[in-house]
Amino acid sequence: MNKNNYCIIMAGGVGSRFWPMSRISKPKQFLDVLGVGQSLIKMTYNRFKNICPQENIYIVTNQIYKDLVKEQLEGITDDCIVTEPARRNTAPCITYANFKIMAKNPEANIVVAPSDHLILKEDEFLRIVNSALDVAKQQEVLVTLGIKPSYPNTGYGYIQYDKDDYTTIDKNVKKVKIFTEKPDLEMAKKFIQSGDFLWNAGIFIWSLKSINTALQTYLPEVYNIFMQGLDNYNTDKEESFINEIYTSCPSISIDYGVMEKAGNVYVIPSDFGWSDVGTWNALYQVREKDANGNSIIGKNVMTYDTTNSIITMPKDKLVVLQGLDGYIIVESDNTLMICKKEEEQRVKQFLTDVEVKKGEKYL
Amino acid sequence: MNKNNYCIIMAGGVGSRFWPMSRISKPKQFLDVLGVGQSLIKMTYNRFKNICPQENIYIVTNQIYKDLVKEQLEGITDDCIVTEPARRNTAPCITYANFKIMAKNPEANIVVAPSDHLILKEDEFLRIVNSALDVAKQQEVLVTLGIKPSYPNTGYGYIQYDKDDYTTIDKNVKKVKIFTEKPDLEMAKKFIQSGDFLWNAGIFIWSLKSINTALQTYLPEVYNIFMQGLDNYNTDKEESFINEIYTSCPSISIDYGVMEKAGNVYVIPSDFGWSDVGTWNALYQVREKDANGNSIIGKNVMTYDTTNSIITMPKDKLVVLQGLDGYIIVESDNTLMICKKEEEQRVKQFLTDVEVKKGEKYL
Repeated sequence: MNKNNYCIIMAGGVGSRFWPMSRISKPKQFLDVLGVGQSLIKMTYNRFKNICPQENIYIVTNQIYKDLVKEQLEGITDDCIVTEPARRNTAPCITYANFKIMAKNPEANIVVAPSDHLILKEDEFLRIVNSALDVAKQQEVLVTLGIKPSYPNTGYGYIQYDKDDYTTIDKNVKKVKIFTEKPDLEMAKKFIQSGDFLWNAGIFIWSLKSINTALQTYLPEVYNIFMQGLDNYNTDKEESFINEIYTSCPSISIDYGVMEKAGNVYVIPSDFGWSDVGTWNALYQVREKDANGNSIIGKNVMTYDTTNSIITMPKDKLVVLQGLDGYIIVESDNTLMICKKEEEQRVKQFLTDVEVKKGEKYL
Repeated sequence: MNKNNYCIIMAGGVGSRFWPMSRISKPKQFLDVLGVGQSLIKMTYNRFKNICPQENIYIVTNQIYKDLVKEQLEGITDDCIVTEPARRNTAPCITYANFKIMAKNPEANIVVAPSDHLILKEDEFLRIVNSALDVAKQQEVLVTLGIKPSYPNTGYGYIQYDKDDYTTIDKNVKKVKIFTEKPDLEMAKKFIQSGDFLWNAGIFIWSLKSINTALQTYLPEVYNIFMQGLDNYNTDKEESFINEIYTSCPSISIDYGVMEKAGNVYVIPSDFGWSDVGTWNALYQVREKDANGNSIIGKNVMTYDTTNSIITMPKDKLVVLQGLDGYIIVESDNTLMICKKEEEQRVKQFLTDVEVKKGEKYL
């Protein structure tokens, strides 16, 4: 395995869409939302052990999740857990991890990925990531993986690429024309028809040198803040330095701050059974279902005339459900939520109301 | 208050229709199913304190509920708790209580009533019971209270009375023509139209002498069993005697065993806001409802697009419900049941399945 390969796994999200299963104290990435016996972050971590040595895999997360990371990721060492004192979107957290890696290995080539996505075709994923790394270490390019879309999803950003413009090293690595924000349905349909749009999966591959050059060029207001502490990374001064500067960072995504601006951005059109598992409906799609179309987690759930529902219940709880079609039925930590699948976007409203009426301890 | 007045409150039911709120270990009569702050048995007990001295009120229940009775009914003494070692329907339990009362006061006049019914117009109820007691102590009659029906309910037994035949003492106390079992809808409609049918509420008023005579005549196979132990009642021999003989009693109701056969049965057509609270729908009818037609017990229940539902949740539990119309949603003791109101008769099936699949600890 190439010792210059590194991974940065971003695990700072709070997963509020999956409340009450997901809580601020234990968000989605730390949960076994699929009912397969392990959390999404553990699956992601183990996947990247095929890309680089374990000691080269960094988890970037909020300070409050450090113990959860250590508990779930066997063998991880403290210096691989990069803790943010505040949430500042992806650009600052990637920059921070970059500086930590640079202090160890300036020749690093890095894969950046979310901690909470599902990848069903792992071999294909590894093949594509390795081909991206091959390109990234030879050329000053920023590579992203774009998912071949299967339907006009309006919840994702899209990447348009140039079919006839690709790297000299690998013609599957296509030049990006433009990144787009989440489209409306009409626009999404057009994207699908055109055949040159991909879903933005938030997975990036680049050399440390390439991303540093891009950050210096397009996000100096972020890069320079971290640059000030160059001598502090991986020393006992790091924590106080980060605590001091982090909140002064602008909150900005790597997509908006770098990828949409840089001229050397490439994408690999990919199909490796990806899901961002970003909504209850997305989770319902990827979870195992019974003959009635119910996806049930919970050992003591009995259903009658109940169909097309996603049910997540504590193991020890006896649950009898009758006459429910197309519902999200979820209980966690003494909180029960029942909501029509098609109304899942209202969970945000429920959370706001819960916070106002009952207090933030329920979030 | 007349010291010859006695009450027998029958509290041996297991209330399986209200599972999982009601459990074998704590059935309906011991629960605050109305959400008013006290159990049905406590409301019944306090109501009868207006009829007779507290020490004359007997609770007949299963041995396993003795502690619950003592816990809920303040000031009740052990000798007023008549415990059955087995369930044998109403005739044996009334006969047993009769013998205990006879050992104290052969001049007793007795009201027999279920522990788990709701009576909204208490003053009217007391007026009618007292008028029935007036008749019962002067004449050898068996009086029952019949509820003036408001709609063709198919879940109750009916009593047909003779409008022109009544006691010499009180012309409101009408001669019974016939007791009928639960009718089908067509028959129930005819009953309502005819104007001389009443709902059988299972409330009886008689002198001890009258009911003993009737039991000797129509149910000697029950009466004689208890007669054998005449000297044992209210002594330290009672318990072992009862444990010995009780299971050998036939299981038979006082309605079938006596009321349907005796010639001296009278009924008082009554209207005192009665409900047997016998089904979820009956409970829904009598419970307080909000503007959306939801009847909610539970301090932390939040509803969205949810209507016409009966919701009973533990106090401390946060519950968010969206998009439910006409459901029973109930949790108790770590068991959740959701069922359409119109399908409530299926609870029996659920219970059978639960027992087979999960074990009787959940019943």
